[in-house]
Amino acid sequence: MSRRLVVIGGDAAGGSAASQARKRSPDLDVVVFERGRATSYSACGIPYWISGAVESEADLIARTPEQHRAMGIDVRIRTEVVGIDLDRRVVHWRDLAEGGSGVEPFDDLVYATGSVPMRPPVPGIDATGVHGVQTLDDGAALRAALDGDVSRVVVVGGGYIGLEIAEACRIRGLDVTVVDMSATPVGTFDPDVGEFIADAVRKEGIDLVLSDAVAAIETDAAGRVRAVVTASGRELHADLVVLGLGVRPAVRLAEEAGIPLGTSGGVAVDARMRTQAEGVWAAGDCVESVHRLSGQRMVVALGTHANKQGRVAGINIGGGYATFPGVIGTAITRMCDLEAARTGLSTAEAEAAGYEFVTAVVDSTTKAGYFPGAQPIRLKMIAERRSGRLLGAQVVGREAAAKRVDALAICIWNEMGVDEILSLDLSYAPPFAPVWDPVLIAARKAFEAVEADVRLL
Amino acid sequence: MSRRLVVIGGDAAGGSAASQARKRSPDLDVVVFERGRATSYSACGIPYWISGAVESEADLIARTPEQHRAMGIDVRIRTEVVGIDLDRRVVHWRDLAEGGSGVEPFDDLVYATGSVPMRPPVPGIDATGVHGVQTLDDGAALRAALDGDVSRVVVVGGGYIGLEIAEACRIRGLDVTVVDMSATPVGTFDPDVGEFIADAVRKEGIDLVLSDAVAAIETDAAGRVRAVVTASGRELHADLVVLGLGVRPAVRLAEEAGIPLGTSGGVAVDARMRTQAEGVWAAGDCVESVHRLSGQRMVVALGTHANKQGRVAGINIGGGYATFPGVIGTAITRMCDLEAARTGLSTAEAEAAGYEFVTAVVDSTTKAGYFPGAQPIRLKMIAERRSGRLLGAQVVGREAAAKRVDALAICIWNEMGVDEILSLDLSYAPPFAPVWDPVLIAARKAFEAVEADVRLL
Repeated sequence: MSRRLVVIGGDAAGGSAASQARKRSPDLDVVVFERGRATSYSACGIPYWISGAVESEADLIARTPEQHRAMGIDVRIRTEVVGIDLDRRVVHWRDLAEGGSGVEPFDDLVYATGSVPMRPPVPGIDATGVHGVQTLDDGAALRAALDGDVSRVVVVGGGYIGLEIAEACRIRGLDVTVVDMSATPVGTFDPDVGEFIADAVRKEGIDLVLSDAVAAIETDAAGRVRAVVTASGRELHADLVVLGLGVRPAVRLAEEAGIPLGTSGGVAVDARMRTQAEGVWAAGDCVESVHRLSGQRMVVALGTHANKQGRVAGINIGGGYATFPGVIGTAITRMCDLEAARTGLSTAEAEAAGYEFVTAVVDSTTKAGYFPGAQPIRLKMIAERRSGRLLGAQVVGREAAAKRVDALAICIWNEMGVDEILSLDLSYAPPFAPVWDPVLIAARKAFEAVEADVRLL
Repeated sequence: MSRRLVVIGGDAAGGSAASQARKRSPDLDVVVFERGRATSYSACGIPYWISGAVESEADLIARTPEQHRAMGIDVRIRTEVVGIDLDRRVVHWRDLAEGGSGVEPFDDLVYATGSVPMRPPVPGIDATGVHGVQTLDDGAALRAALDGDVSRVVVVGGGYIGLEIAEACRIRGLDVTVVDMSATPVGTFDPDVGEFIADAVRKEGIDLVLSDAVAAIETDAAGRVRAVVTASGRELHADLVVLGLGVRPAVRLAEEAGIPLGTSGGVAVDARMRTQAEGVWAAGDCVESVHRLSGQRMVVALGTHANKQGRVAGINIGGGYATFPGVIGTAITRMCDLEAARTGLSTAEAEAAGYEFVTAVVDSTTKAGYFPGAQPIRLKMIAERRSGRLLGAQVVGREAAAKRVDALAICIWNEMGVDEILSLDLSYAPPFAPVWDPVLIAARKAFEAVEADVRLL
């Protein structure tokens, strides 16, 4: 009998693992259990489907169950794995559509359950009109609700997903308020960069309620959302509430089965995406990754990591060799006309990791200043004192600003110092950059700060 | 008596050297001789001034003579240095405006003479109606000529500057033909990328005459340009000819003075921008740089290098310490709606440098494929066989495509292998990239090519 791989979860990580393993090892039986009705879809695209920028659900799906099946992968949608028995080497499943259940044996297992959205434990959280935005089903439900009689939306959480959903609702012509506990939106940015974002969001007509939290959701007699009440006592009228608080790893099944978690709460994996249970692999939003700068283990829910980790697991299962080398916290978003991106450590993260550092902030333009269409860009660098090593960078600006973060991410990845960064041979022509690219200007300024600081040591 | 620095050339390199030296060493007397009437201007911006995208000459000037003077720098415009006497430590100058001449002593000298445009040695090259585009004066003359009775323009040279000028003329509504000796335009790109560029240029209605050279420029009875005749016998009617063949380093003065040149024909400098003559520094288009990958010395005329090299020379002259670490051949351009960029070695350059390599070409999109405004992007990687080290990369595409070259340049700078590149934590969100950024897809494909090749070794 041939070897059997069972994959729990058919989205980015599970789908990649299944297809890589199958590709490398054509004799392998591959069974994928997916609780939802779709596989391999772009959850990150849901806000744009809500806004109407992306027209159809089908656009978000990279690979359908049928496409997986055509590659010889046995995909079972609407089927939930409800238990893992590591001793007997089987998973227990339940058919959510038809109601049946069963047992599937495995030799190798990929745990790719993804994440579950955070729900504040407040009164009214389960009221009609409170929506999540994590799955395609969530997206479809929210779209349908927004097509109804809705005029006021409160978004809980002002991170990436919260602001993207807020913008989508604004594009649909609704009144939108975002509530967030941080003093500036997207708390993973430093406050001086967050201010830039807050201004842009407010200019779009989105209300921001900051340094405040949701205390309760009030409902009408029919159990429908009526208002959101905050910790500070504000009452925000709402026909609809969207939860955009981020996610936590879906680890319940792993815990129950005895697959060890790491200190961060995600499933612990090694560089090859092996868990500490024999023959069990894990990938995607449910695992913890190593931050290459701080050395800390953390859970980063992001489709690009999920794809890479799934690929690594699949190659290894298929008999190859691949490793996932960790993350450095790169993220990017577009809010209204503003682009924002970060990589490495923020000042708060650098402090928490024990670093001392200097910072530099520059305001420049995306193209030569005199060139038509040149847009403002603000770039912040965080450099370790004495060594000058780049620890983190943040970019905000208009069109063509934020993708510069990739250059900065690669500098951090390679542990470059700001003195070397300012000498880099980056591309220059007036339609693309000033003669000193903003990246180089920021490195110059950060280097001057490092030098000034060294004199004090 | 205080120390005196004389700078020959007041553009990017000379201006930067003068201001850095002065800033670090306020007692230094700084005299800058500039043959033209402007200092510190963006020669790269001239095509956009020709096209009308940039409105006025003043927009191109980063720092005027008056601004330099306000910093205590004695700028003498329209004054040409005609000789350097290293024994007597003086330069001989001539006032081009008033006709006088004189001698200026120096302790340190910065040689920043820039470059001279290449002129094919063909009959008629000095005819009325043949224009260069190197200096502001060239730009002003060309603008004035194009405002006259001109309908057909031939651009000699299909490199960056040639195509930029061709586009500028096309925007002005003229018939434009570009003649170039290469089989595809911008010969520093590989042919498969150059084809992409050729298509875009032709779609703009610009005629390309490739694999051909200018043999003669025919004139009418009044000595005005009438046609360009090519080596293959084509006769291209022209009211105006623009020479966009690139430049060579302006080293005549240095040669006459006994300042040694390098093998590439540029002034030889060390990492601190010192020439081999005591107390003489050089920077900008006239010097040779080290290519960090091939180890070869080469002249690269580019404003961003000139600025950096001038800064390095100025810091060192001012008593500080700075080095210029070399170049890796990064370049970018926009032609019509197409963006194109390269870094590292092309296949031809890699061969010439003795490398064996594999290549990978991918066609992807600038944003998630389903996202509105996603544009095609083609990315080519050249990776060393066995090691997988990235040797070169080329990018072409529409809006937001080409600046990705910076990420690739930093990979090359750090001698990264394609296997590590495919794991990089690059930014992802649907408005900015597919979940596998084109850079990562290309690295994956290049890595597969490296692996397949290793099996043959």
